[in-house]
Parts: sequence; C-alpha cells; structure tokens
Amino acid sequence: MSSREKHDRMANAIRFLSIDAVEKANSGHPGLPMGAADVATVLYTRFLKHDPANPHWHDRDRFVLSAGHGSMLLYSLLYLSGYEDITLDEIKNFRQLGSKTAGHPEYGHAAGIETTTGPLGQGLANAVGMALAERIMNAQFGDKLVDHYTYVLAGDGCLMEGISQEALSFAGHLKLNKLIVFWDHNNISIDGPISLADSTDQLARFAASGWNTIAIDGHDPEAIAGAIEVAKRSDRPTLIAAKTTIGFGSPAKAGTNKVHGSPLGAAEIEATRKALGWDYPAFEVPSDILDAWRLAGLNSAKKRNDWEKRLAEAETEVRAEFERRMRGDLPANFDATIAEYKKKLAADKPKVATRKSSEMALEVINGVVPETIGGSADLTGSNNTKTSQTKPISAEDYGQRFVHYGIREHGMAAAMNGMALHGGVIPYSGTFLCFSDYARPAMRLASLMGIRVGFVMTHDSIGLGEDGPTHQPVEHFAALRAIPNHIVFRPADATEAAECWQLTLENRTTPSTLALTRQNLPAVRTEFVEENLCGYGAYELATAEGDAEVTIFATGSEVEIALGARKLLQDAGHPTRVVSVPAFELFEKQSPEYRKAMIGNAKVKIAIEAGIRMGWDSFIGTDGIFIGMHGFGASAPIEDLYKHFGITAEAAAQAAKARLQA
Amino acid sequence: MSSREKHDRMANAIRFLSIDAVEKANSGHPGLPMGAADVATVLYTRFLKHDPANPHWHDRDRFVLSAGHGSMLLYSLLYLSGYEDITLDEIKNFRQLGSKTAGHPEYGHAAGIETTTGPLGQGLANAVGMALAERIMNAQFGDKLVDHYTYVLAGDGCLMEGISQEALSFAGHLKLNKLIVFWDHNNISIDGPISLADSTDQLARFAASGWNTIAIDGHDPEAIAGAIEVAKRSDRPTLIAAKTTIGFGSPAKAGTNKVHGSPLGAAEIEATRKALGWDYPAFEVPSDILDAWRLAGLNSAKKRNDWEKRLAEAETEVRAEFERRMRGDLPANFDATIAEYKKKLAADKPKVATRKSSEMALEVINGVVPETIGGSADLTGSNNTKTSQTKPISAEDYGQRFVHYGIREHGMAAAMNGMALHGGVIPYSGTFLCFSDYARPAMRLASLMGIRVGFVMTHDSIGLGEDGPTHQPVEHFAALRAIPNHIVFRPADATEAAECWQLTLENRTTPSTLALTRQNLPAVRTEFVEENLCGYGAYELATAEGDAEVTIFATGSEVEIALGARKLLQDAGHPTRVVSVPAFELFEKQSPEYRKAMIGNAKVKIAIEAGIRMGWDSFIGTDGIFIGMHGFGASAPIEDLYKHFGITAEAAAQAAKARLQA
Repeated sequence: MSSREKHDRMANAIRFLSIDAVEKANSGHPGLPMGAADVATVLYTRFLKHDPANPHWHDRDRFVLSAGHGSMLLYSLLYLSGYEDITLDEIKNFRQLGSKTAGHPEYGHAAGIETTTGPLGQGLANAVGMALAERIMNAQFGDKLVDHYTYVLAGDGCLMEGISQEALSFAGHLKLNKLIVFWDHNNISIDGPISLADSTDQLARFAASGWNTIAIDGHDPEAIAGAIEVAKRSDRPTLIAAKTTIGFGSPAKAGTNKVHGSPLGAAEIEATRKALGWDYPAFEVPSDILDAWRLAGLNSAKKRNDWEKRLAEAETEVRAEFERRMRGDLPANFDATIAEYKKKLAADKPKVATRKSSEMALEVINGVVPETIGGSADLTGSNNTKTSQTKPISAEDYGQRFVHYGIREHGMAAAMNGMALHGGVIPYSGTFLCFSDYARPAMRLASLMGIRVGFVMTHDSIGLGEDGPTHQPVEHFAALRAIPNHIVFRPADATEAAECWQLTLENRTTPSTLALTRQNLPAVRTEFVEENLCGYGAYELATAEGDAEVTIFATGSEVEIALGARKLLQDAGHPTRVVSVPAFELFEKQSPEYRKAMIGNAKVKIAIEAGIRMGWDSFIGTDGIFIGMHGFGASAPIEDLYKHFGITAEAAAQAAKARLQA
Repeated sequence: MSSREKHDRMANAIRFLSIDAVEKANSGHPGLPMGAADVATVLYTRFLKHDPANPHWHDRDRFVLSAGHGSMLLYSLLYLSGYEDITLDEIKNFRQLGSKTAGHPEYGHAAGIETTTGPLGQGLANAVGMALAERIMNAQFGDKLVDHYTYVLAGDGCLMEGISQEALSFAGHLKLNKLIVFWDHNNISIDGPISLADSTDQLARFAASGWNTIAIDGHDPEAIAGAIEVAKRSDRPTLIAAKTTIGFGSPAKAGTNKVHGSPLGAAEIEATRKALGWDYPAFEVPSDILDAWRLAGLNSAKKRNDWEKRLAEAETEVRAEFERRMRGDLPANFDATIAEYKKKLAADKPKVATRKSSEMALEVINGVVPETIGGSADLTGSNNTKTSQTKPISAEDYGQRFVHYGIREHGMAAAMNGMALHGGVIPYSGTFLCFSDYARPAMRLASLMGIRVGFVMTHDSIGLGEDGPTHQPVEHFAALRAIPNHIVFRPADATEAAECWQLTLENRTTPSTLALTRQNLPAVRTEFVEENLCGYGAYELATAEGDAEVTIFATGSEVEIALGARKLLQDAGHPTRVVSVPAFELFEKQSPEYRKAMIGNAKVKIAIEAGIRMGWDSFIGTDGIFIGMHGFGASAPIEDLYKHFGITAEAAAQAAKARLQA
C-alpha cells in the first residue's frame, strides 16, 4: 500500500465513522468530516503533539474544531487516535442522552475536546486566547516547559461571523505565530453556495491584519503537510486555506448543501462506500488502519516523555509553581492576604466607586496571584482593571500581564475563555456593562463550560450619567442572572468588592460578572469580618431596631439608598432591616433555613436596584415594592437621573410608609 | 475671504460649538467633532441632499454618525444647517435631562438624527440596511422617486468591532454603491494610539470585500470633495479613509487620547481659540458664517422641489402606494385578510411546527403586504422565512424580497434596523433563538428606537433536540423579555402564529421577536374568533369544568402539555383552566381587572415553559409551581429531553395533585 493509499484509507476511516454515526442518530452533519478528513488526518498523524494516553498533558498542542457542527470529525479523530473517553460505543451513541458524543463538542464530556464549539466563530476566538496563553506561559516558564501550537479548523461560517474579525485582527497584531488556522474552504453553507451571501477574498482579508496565508488543495496530503511545515516556521499566525469538497466521496451529494446537515441515507452511503472503496460494515475500521492510527498516537506521545524529563529537571520551585498554576490552585497565602486587606478597609472606610474598589482589590490580588492577566476593551482608565503589576503585553513582550484587547468585546470574552481553557493563567477583563451584550455569546459559553473567567463590567447603571440610554444598562442584571452557572456580583463598597473578587478567583467552575459603578459610594461594611459574607449571596447588613416592619433588599450603589431609607423609616418609628444582595446565584444555593431567615417576615418588603424588576419577586414577592427602572434611562447628570426615575431613599421610605398604613 | 478661509471658518463653527457644549456640560467628546469638522462641512454644504425645513423628505440622503460619541458634530451640523429641532438653546443644554441633544444621538429626539448610535459599529451596519432599502425602493419605484446616497462617518472603534466586518462584507457582496463611508482615521482610541491594539490595513480589508477605497487628507476640503465625487460614481460601496487629527486645533491635546472623551478645559479652549483665530464668545457663531451654513441648507433644499414635482407627476396609484409605504401604513385589506386566513385555520386545524405556521402566515401576509422583506442568516430552510413571493435579492436584482444575510446575525439585525429606519420596507429575518445573543446589541437598539422589525427566532427550546445545549435556548425568553419595549411572542399554534404576525406588523413603535418551534404542535385554537386574542398577551384558552382548582399558564410548545395536564387533572376531579401567554409584554399593558381575572384565584398555579423560571412569578407567585428548565439542556432526541427534564403533562399534573393534597 503506497503512503497515499494508506493516507486515503486512514482519512476514509474518519469519513465512514462520521457517515455511520450521523446515519444511526438520524441527525448530524456528515459533510464537514468527509471534506476535512484529509486535513485532519495529516494534522493528527504527522504533526499534532499529543498523547492520547495522557490527554491533559500541559504542553500538548491544542486542536479546536471551530466548525463544531462537524463534531463527528473530532470524535472520529479521538477514537482513532486512542483517547479512551471516546469508545466505539460512544460513537454509536452519537447525539444520544448521556453520551460523551453530543451534537456539538462539549468541553468536559471527554478529554481531547479542548473547548465547546457550535456557535460559529467562537472556537477560532478561543484558539486565539489559547495561543496567547501559550506565549504568556512560555515567556514566564521558557521553551522547555511551554512550547506548543494551537491548531484550528474553521469553516466558511466561522469566517463570516463578526467575531472572526475581532479574533484575527487581535491575533495578527500580537503576532501569535504559533496559531495555525485551517479554513475548510468548501464554499458551501446551509443555504447553498457561499456566493449567495459573500464574496470576500479571505486570504486578502487575513493578510490585511498581518497573517501569513497559504492556499492549498485540501485533499492533497503532501500539500497539507507542506503548508503546516511552512506555517510552523512563520513569524506570524497562519491561515491555511484548504480547498475542499464538502461531503467528499458522496457521488450524488458531494459539493452541495444537501450533505451539510443531514444524514446521507442508506442508498447514498452504499454509493459512497463503493466510490471510496470502503468495503466494511457500518462502524468497522479495518485493523490495519486502526493500528496505523493508534501507532501515530503512540509516536506522538514520545514527546511527552522528553517533556516530563525536562519538567523533572526544572528547579523545584519553578516546577511547583508551574504545576500549581496548571492545576488552577491559588497561592497558599491568598485567603490570608484578602483577610488582611479587608482589615485595612474596615479601618480606612474608603468612599470610592466600586470600579475603583475593584482596582484596589486587584492591586492586592495581582500582588500575590501572578497568573492573573488583566485587560480592557479600550476602556482601561474607565474599567480600572490595570494595576501596578500589570504592564501591556505586546508582540515584542509576552511576559507581561495586561492585554489591550481593543474595541472587541466579543473577541475579548472568547479569547479569555480560551486562556482559561489553556490553563496556567486566570483572565479578567472589562468593558461597560451595557456592552456585555456584545460579549454575551462567549459569556454564555463560559457558563456552559464552567470555567473561571472574570468579566469586569463597569458603569453599571444610570449612575454613569450623561452618556445616556445607549450606555446605561437597565435589563442587564436580569439578563446576565438568567444565564445558568453564571454569577453576577454587584458589590456595594470596597469590602464587598474584595469579597466578590475572592469568590471570583476561588470559584473554578463558574464564570463571574462583576458589575461596578462609575460613581463614588460610601463604605457600608464598617467592621472587619473575616468570613466572606458575599459568599452567602445575600446577608443582613443592617438590623432593625426592634421587630422589623420593613425589609429592604438592595445591591451595589443602591445599598447606600437602602440605608438612607432605613434611617428615614426608623426615625419615623418603623424598624427596618437592610439586606445586601451581592449575588442572587449564590443566595439560591444557601439552605432553605438561611434563605427563609434572610427574606424574613417584615410586613413590607422593598427591593432597590437601578435595573428592572425581573428576578426580584423571589425576594419581595409579587406584592413587594420595587424601586428601580421601568424602561430605558436618559442622558443627564447622575443626580438628576436618580431623582427623575424615583430611585431615592425618600421615595423608598415614602412607599414603605404608605404600605404600612394601608 | 478665500473659499478655503470660508471653509475653515465654517468648520471651526462646528469645532467651537462642540468644544463649548462639552465644556458647559462638563461631559462629552470634543475630539471627534474637532477632527471630523472638515469632512462634515464639505459633506453637508456641498454634497448632502437634504432640506432642513423638511427634514423627513423621503428622498433625502441619509447621514449616519456611527461614531455616536461625537454627537456634538451632528448637533452642530443640524443647528448650523437650520434644522429647527436643534436650537442654540438645545446645544447649550447638551447632555441635560429632557434635552434633544443627548449624550449620544437618539433617534426620535430631533429630525436629522437618522438612527441612534453610540454602541460602536451599529451605525455602519444600520447604514448598510438603509442603503439596501434605498436600492430596493429604487427598484420598485424608479429613479424619479428614490435615488439617494447613504453617508456614514465611522471611527476606528467602529471598524474594530466585529459587526463592521459583517456589515462591510454584506455591503460589498451586494455592491451597494450608493453607500459612502468616511473613516475618521485619527489613529486614537480611548486607551491611546490604535497601535496598542490593532495593526490592520483597513483599506486592504475593505478592498478584500469588494469595496472601492480612497485615502485622503481629512483636513483638505478639495481632497474631501474629490473623493466624494469619485465615490458617487463608483459601482461599489466606497470607503474614504480620511486621515484626521483628533482634537484638531488644540495646541496641547490634538492628536492624543486626552481630547477623546473629556472637556478641553478653560485654558486649552482659550489656546485653541487663539490657534484657530476664532475670536468669539462661547456658543457664538458670527453671522456671516451662520448665513453661509444656512444658505448651503437652502441651496440643497432646491432638489426637494424638483422631487415634489416628480412625485406629483407620478401615476396616482404609484404615488399613493409610495406614500402609504413611507407613512408605514399597512394595506387597507390587511386585517380582513388575516381574519379570512384564521377562518381557514379554524377549519383545517393544521398540526405543524410554529416555524411552519409562521411561514404559512407569512405566505398570506406577503401576498397582501408588498413591503415586507424577508431573510435569514443562512438558515432559510430552518427559519421558514421564505415564501412564494420572496425571491433572493442580489447585486444584479434589488427588486426582490428575500435577503440571504449570510452567517451574520449581528449585522443582519442592525441592517434590518436601518431598513426600518429608512422606511418603505418592513424587514423580518431569522436565525435560531439561541443566536439572538449574537444579534442582541442591535435588537436592544431597535427597542430603544421604537421601530418595527420582526426578529424570527426558531428552534426555540430543547425541542430542537440533538444539536444540544450550545443551540438550545433556556434563558433567552427571560433575557429578551427583559429588554424594555421589546415584545417576545411565543405562539402555540398556527392561529396564534397568525395573530402574532398581525401584531408584529401593526405595532409600529415596538420591535418583535417571534420564538418558534422546530417540532410539530397540534392546533390548540380550534374555533374561529375574529378578535386577535394574542393581543391580550395572555388569555383563557381552556376553561375549568367547575370552579378552577388549578390554573396552568403556558406558552408555545408547552401549551399542548398544559392542555394534557388539564385533562389528567380534570379526569381526576380537579377543575383546571389553561391560560395561553403568547406575550408577557402585552399582558402587562392590560387593565388591572383583566389581569386579575386572567391570573385567577385557583389554589394551585402552575407555569410550564421550556425555559427558566425568571419572570413567571408575576403569574404564579413565588409559591407557584414551575415546570421548565433549571439549567442548560442536553444533546438527545426531543422525546428523551422533555422526559429527562420533567416537562410533561404527567409531571405537571402530579405536582398539582401533590399541592392540592398538601
């Protein structure tokens, strides 16, 4: 068997596993795996540095299937290469309840799935973050411990999504030369030929942002190998435009959208088997071909042994630090440092915006947690995410800790996901809360994957003032709280900000959004408590003087208003307690007893938040009083806005009194 | 005074109005108006076809300030040109409560503000939609009635946002040659020089998508004029890269980020007045310069007179139709047609997915409403948005009614906003509900502006099955309902789908999202009622046989489950009513009496929706039973998923019985 014949048969193994799994599930996308099988075969058997027996090996190359609908390509590769999570039974169970072989690759379902993909363009942007994390870790730990490539397979759809522009221009600017993207250039999308909707010269577009570009026949293994060789030597990220035929091998459907997202059907499968000379029953891979695949996996694994030796030879402290960071553990002195800092805050009682108290907390954290990588989407001075320890990362210096992501909220969020997935770094970065909408698809995926990312969202209400309703979030607290496995923190002062950051870093399986004010706020936590009270999600900040007639729940900047209302009410003879609610999601996890006690039995329940009511009924009931926003904001100075929209201590106290007298 | 001197003084009038307004407000962005004043002056005084005295003239050129933070540029232009909405007092009231001169340009505040901008990149994508609407209307009504340009001023930030790529590649593909974009190429963003975060060759990038590109000195009026002349003759959209100095004229701050988003300060204003030879008090424009501006406005207005004549000469029917469409009125037979169709549905009782019943409704609507323009983000066959009347629009044929937007959800939504703003067309288009996240920033702006756009969002729950959690919306109903002035429709069958479409088209000041199923659903409305019951937001679909012990609220595909649970409960002796809730937002607008009656007094209240609970407490109270999702979905066939997540008639009936017995 010539090497070309062998290649073809190895690639056909991918094609038929994919065809058969999609057919059995009666659901899925056979076209991409059939078209990209040659590229994937060359990559996995001749280039990818990985060890199927030790799939989490830190210095492995990463492979991201950005075109996640072609999931059977990845599952086939993992099965054939010998990853034990993906058995033949799993492939036969494609898209069934509880299988590891979900419709789209799901991070955490099986080793070898580096990220969750499916929403187009996300994988490409994740990969940019992975490639950046690799360069950062390389700068800090050297070539001996960190030196790997990030490969991506992206489809036409990935490149049409706007996020791809953010990702590619960012990667080009940072000269992430260890990022190699295959564009599965099959010219077909779901509706038909790409020419229905696009006529972009993609090579010129990537080149315009400083990429190395190569165009090849995506079915020619030597051309594929040659392109990868060139790409690996490039001083810039590389786009390999691999011209392929979607559904390659299917006599009737290849090259058409009919093979994109539907099973081939029994007759066409039979015809495809004939056309490609694949004379085996469904799901059967002949042993010589399976052996060849497994051997390739074994061969690649040798590099891990060399790496293990280098790790063993490293200085004890370097090794310990590298392993701590890759495990995701925080430094041992983290909690003590936070406690110490909270003591100082209790003494100082700073009156600052929470974006500023976030910066103060980060200044402390970044001093003891060297793996945090800050950033901003061109709002560095507004988001207050840069501290004394974090200098800008650039193509000339990856050994720093602050990323100027540019005006690219979506790409930023997805890149942060990729950095977290890579490991060794903890990414946080910011924009205005209103523009969390731009980043939302990536924030959702962070939640679905369960990864540690800090989304810093400042200017969190009408309190930002004159910029007006385009910049004033009102529905965003509710909309972000709606995402499962996503914690929205809204601290009320510097102590709560410190506690929210502590929780953000300690929670390894849930991303966090920190909603922070532009305007100054007084300290509301005036005594030192070592315990992290924000960890309860809601806690009693001020007790009632007497049996509570009124309970006021509030978050962030409105806690000050709640305390003001409490004073007015108590002065009028109505005992009132205030509950600060920095994180709905954490409160829901408390015991029923704790929750019941916090909600309490006061006759009048009020919630104050400069956002919409949605979500608050679980605290105040449907008959509770809500002081907040009922529509979009307006452009005006902050004092005018809070008055105009009736979010004041006076309004809250008056509403409570009216209800008490009713 | 030489013509250059005159130009400079006219441009300086913009500069100083902007400087003075920002200084007085102590808030705002002087840098862009100062830098782009020359471009804007040439455009408004020598090219823009408009009539300040009749600012809504249909065939006017559109100007979009995509870099909305430079709002004082636009307000200055409108005041100087003689738009009566923007008085000098309004300019002095910049960024104050109730002023028309909000922090960012707000559509509806004043004539001449063609769209709301501020969130970067949106204006550029709106303009693409406007330019497309112009070509569509031109194809239908001819050069005599529709023949105008769309101009955009975009900043570096607009071009860095991913949405810009979607917009520009779409515009290039459709060869929208009457779209002319000025890139205010000042190389400065908030954080500092653009080189901190980007090194893209923007001319090459635009050229890669088929644009005509021109680079000029943005302070040279003749170069600006020459570029516009060339652009107007182009057969492709044009990017004019105008190299400018941000904060032009400020001796100490020009060319730096210090002048981007902060007032200049008294001393620097004084220095700038000296440097530019502007020897007038704050807010004063010398009469010769104001006269020159006003004269330019008057000169341009002459074209309107010619157009009015052409309109008067048009055939009566053509004129009437043109005017009807530009007013936004629906055809007179619209309601009767819907009623007729509902009669047919009551007889046929089709069992189809609501994406299909949406298509059936559209087939009827598109037959009588010629201004609807359908589309899809590459999911035409899945979204079911294409009907027999709608053939694809292309660069060769703008006279059709279906847009292949490509895999560009964000650009699509923003382009639809632009089409609606242009007028004469009613845009609707689709993607999967889960990917409404990609389009969300534009959907929010549609809501803020209050414009008629139909966002068709199919595959609206775990009911889509095998594609899994990346494609299964769970938080999206809540997240979209959270947006003020945005109606989320979730019809339960073909009759409700028809009613929801009727409401979508009849509501001129609120955009609508139509959440539609992939799976088939039985008819739940089996008798003809002419009244649009969905217009109540919630209505009693099935009464209880006896005094209701249980009320079940449900939407869309879960109404069938609610009816199943009702049967189980009634069979067990528990009278149960079912309330269908196709639109929360419309229910909230009903009278307190109606709402009270609909909520009712049944001992047990249940809500069933294949999404999260958030928002449902207002129907069922905090102690109500919620049957729905509590986290992300999973990849599996639909039947398995509904069982797995406990969203079944049996589960609902059982929970109700347990509660009744408690």
